[in-house]
Amino acid sequence: MKLSELVKEVGGLFEGPSDPEISGVGTLEDAGPSEVAFYQDERYRNELVHTNAAAVFVKNKVEGVRVMQIMHLTPYLAFARAMRIFHPPSRPEPGISPLATVEGAEIGTGSTVLPYAFIGPGSRLGRNCIVHPYAYIGPNVRMKDDCIVFPHVSIREGTRIGNRCIFQDGCRIGTDGFGFAVEENGKLLKIPQVGSVVIEDDVEIGANCCIDRATLSMTLIGADTKFDNLVQIGHNVRIGKGCRLVAQVGIAGSSRLGDNVILAGQVGVADHITIGDNATVGAKSGVTRDLAGGSLYVGFPAIPYNQWRAIQHRLIHPDQPEKENNVDPSDSHS
Amino acid sequence: MKLSELVKEVGGLFEGPSDPEISGVGTLEDAGPSEVAFYQDERYRNELVHTNAAAVFVKNKVEGVRVMQIMHLTPYLAFARAMRIFHPPSRPEPGISPLATVEGAEIGTGSTVLPYAFIGPGSRLGRNCIVHPYAYIGPNVRMKDDCIVFPHVSIREGTRIGNRCIFQDGCRIGTDGFGFAVEENGKLLKIPQVGSVVIEDDVEIGANCCIDRATLSMTLIGADTKFDNLVQIGHNVRIGKGCRLVAQVGIAGSSRLGDNVILAGQVGVADHITIGDNATVGAKSGVTRDLAGGSLYVGFPAIPYNQWRAIQHRLIHPDQPEKENNVDPSDSHS
Amino acid sequence: MKLSELVKEVGGLFEGPSDPEISGVGTLEDAGPSEVAFYQDERYRNELVHTNAAAVFVKNKVEGVRVMQIMHLTPYLAFARAMRIFHPPSRPEPGISPLATVEGAEIGTGSTVLPYAFIGPGSRLGRNCIVHPYAYIGPNVRMKDDCIVFPHVSIREGTRIGNRCIFQDGCRIGTDGFGFAVEENGKLLKIPQVGSVVIEDDVEIGANCCIDRATLSMTLIGADTKFDNLVQIGHNVRIGKGCRLVAQVGIAGSSRLGDNVILAGQVGVADHITIGDNATVGAKSGVTRDLAGGSLYVGFPAIPYNQWRAIQHRLIHPDQPEKENNVDPSDSHS
Repeated sequence: MKLSELVKEVGGLFEGPSDPEISGVGTLEDAGPSEVAFYQDERYRNELVHTNAAAVFVKNKVEGVRVMQIMHLTPYLAFARAMRIFHPPSRPEPGISPLATVEGAEIGTGSTVLPYAFIGPGSRLGRNCIVHPYAYIGPNVRMKDDCIVFPHVSIREGTRIGNRCIFQDGCRIGTDGFGFAVEENGKLLKIPQVGSVVIEDDVEIGANCCIDRATLSMTLIGADTKFDNLVQIGHNVRIGKGCRLVAQVGIAGSSRLGDNVILAGQVGVADHITIGDNATVGAKSGVTRDLAGGSLYVGFPAIPYNQWRAIQHRLIHPDQPEKENNVDPSDSHS
Repeated sequence: MKLSELVKEVGGLFEGPSDPEISGVGTLEDAGPSEVAFYQDERYRNELVHTNAAAVFVKNKVEGVRVMQIMHLTPYLAFARAMRIFHPPSRPEPGISPLATVEGAEIGTGSTVLPYAFIGPGSRLGRNCIVHPYAYIGPNVRMKDDCIVFPHVSIREGTRIGNRCIFQDGCRIGTDGFGFAVEENGKLLKIPQVGSVVIEDDVEIGANCCIDRATLSMTLIGADTKFDNLVQIGHNVRIGKGCRLVAQVGIAGSSRLGDNVILAGQVGVADHITIGDNATVGAKSGVTRDLAGGSLYVGFPAIPYNQWRAIQHRLIHPDQPEKENNVDPSDSHS
Repeated sequence: MKLSELVKEVGGLFEGPSDPEISGVGTLEDAGPSEVAFYQDERYRNELVHTNAAAVFVKNKVEGVRVMQIMHLTPYLAFARAMRIFHPPSRPEPGISPLATVEGAEIGTGSTVLPYAFIGPGSRLGRNCIVHPYAYIGPNVRMKDDCIVFPHVSIREGTRIGNRCIFQDGCRIGTDGFGFAVEENGKLLKIPQVGSVVIEDDVEIGANCCIDRATLSMTLIGADTKFDNLVQIGHNVRIGKGCRLVAQVGIAGSSRLGDNVILAGQVGVADHITIGDNATVGAKSGVTRDLAGGSLYVGFPAIPYNQWRAIQHRLIHPDQPEKENNVDPSDSHS
């Protein structure tokens, strides 16, 4: 594919001077003379200057770079699109392995069920799904089209899943919530967890995440929401559309997130909390009260970022007036 | 079941005026006119006012509510008991699947071993246990009666388990502890981990938790203790009875918890620490010293809650005297 | 084995007066009169005084102890070596179980593949490896000699593994990184993750850890590095040799650790960070900027330990000048 054709596909301003054949995508460090790369973070300026790539997607032209630069509003998006062109998904042959157990389940056309997968009675999978070895899909699950279930995933009884969802290895969907009442004698009485989990279209759940089923009703993950690894979602939680939950985040029972909320790594959210649309919470913060949408919060308890920064400044420099610093605790597209 | 009969079973003060047939339990929002609900948290007052439930368990009567209110000292306990009445556990037929591997193990009467489960030689399971697909029970494990082992659980060699324990999907019991000594040349030498894990009666372990075996001797989880998901227990740890460990808690090697200790979400406890009976540690705190029982601790390092609150107040309002605030960092029954 | 022979093997100064036959190793509390123990932490002085061990490895002789003391520069190392003598690893018979699926893979001499293991086409395992039930080794993996893969591990396609590596139950190697670009319409576009994971010799990965494959190029874990449980490694991360990552650590994408770095429990490292050789980061800290090697850092954001300690002192005792305290937040060999 010519560079000019690639730019037509992924966007950006192609000015030449040459139009080489492009065979792939690489990092600034590793890309060869028939590959494209991208540059977005000033920490990699040195790698940009020394890159051997055919061309680099950049936001603004950088002085002193000898390879072609292609301006794009968001070089990372150009890179993402180029990656999807040069690395289309491969998929196994459709069919159900004789080493799988699919008892009383319905599997749509074009789907693949690999050895040692288990799909329980009453479950219905759509078209073109892939179920890897050791995936456990319990009874009465509904899963629409084009989903991928990687090895060792558990999807427990009654879960409802939309189209094009991806479940990375070892994630747990629909396990019992942490619900116990204290009896008069002080013992803990388990509360049956009989609700379900509903996952809308285009959701991705990272490796070894846990999403508990609701006590009653449902735990809900909105469309286009993406989870990194080892995230914990308590029972009855409702998460909006287009959210990003970075690794090791934990959300306690019955909390609600609006749309496009970003929780950076290791954030914790207490139970029965509401976080508004487009809020971002910085890494390692702990949310103990409702947060309005549209702002950045940091710390434990999580407070508006500017307030947190002022406190940090006073702590570290108790005798100096505050000035600008560069800490940005958000970590949204690691 | 008549409402009056239900109240007789779960406790509470039934005053009428009517005595409808009750068919189930619901949330304030979702319960229909033949279901009961409960109300305990003021944040849900609006849902209480608008509920369609037949009756609601409440601590104290609330004005302006049109449905029947049943007073109960702990509405959440009434709810738990009602849930157990309307949702008794279902269980699969007893028997060992021909697709399971049970080599040289003894399985008690009434137990079910599902396809793709593995139970190692020398292991002994009691009566009425359920072992789900992909559960791995290593050699020489002892498990008493009425336990449930969900999919993908590992219970490694030599583990001892009491009655009525529940293991949610993907938890790991008896993996090697993190034990290395530094050799003269700086290399890390692995210390064989040859102790075991002992789990007493009525323990529940959440999804994807990890409990390491002891180096020598045992890692001990006391009776009636409950773990949420993704909790980490280092080697040689000893946990008392009736403790609650919320999601993503981590306890480093050789620490000891008394009875009825509550660790809220994402708490960390350093190695060789002792925490006394009935202590509570607030969410995200880090315990770096021994803590006396009976109190609430917060922060990193974890300090008494009132002290922590005073510090937070000075940080956020450096020019104002301290006053009451409403932060309650504990998150014990999410 | 005589005590004098044992000391010759593990190091230390043997002075008699007697030379009993030693049959094993125990804790100070549990060791019997034919076992040795070790003493390194003053908190266990009382256990030392009352021990029934035949002899105890100590750094310096302690007054008032009635059993033999053997001086050793690092008693913990003597203990580790004694453990390895008395507890040599057992291993199953070589061979491939007929209940395993090994399609188009090459398995070296002396290796054992247990029931329900899966090894994908094009993979090559070296000699004397052990692959436990429900281990998933995807297509085109390379694994050298003497590795142990415990139950429920996933090692995804294309991973490269050195000699003598150990994978504890349920760890995930080579799952997709968290890579999404925001499209013009606000939707998240998945970036194919087509790089790999490379793990050098003598690495141990704890239970339920997650190591994401690189977007391009590789995620790298250096030789002799050891992971505790539930650790998260983002895509493109590079970790040096001899590092120790304690439980629940998370490292975001593209960060780099030098050699012999220690990250204590629940530490978080932001993306695109560099940490120098021999740095130590205390428990629960959050690293938001590059850290120079050779020092101890604590807090969020992580700062040099002495600075952190001074701030803590001012917070807790706002009216007193600073004095020495004993907080040591590092937790490296729990």
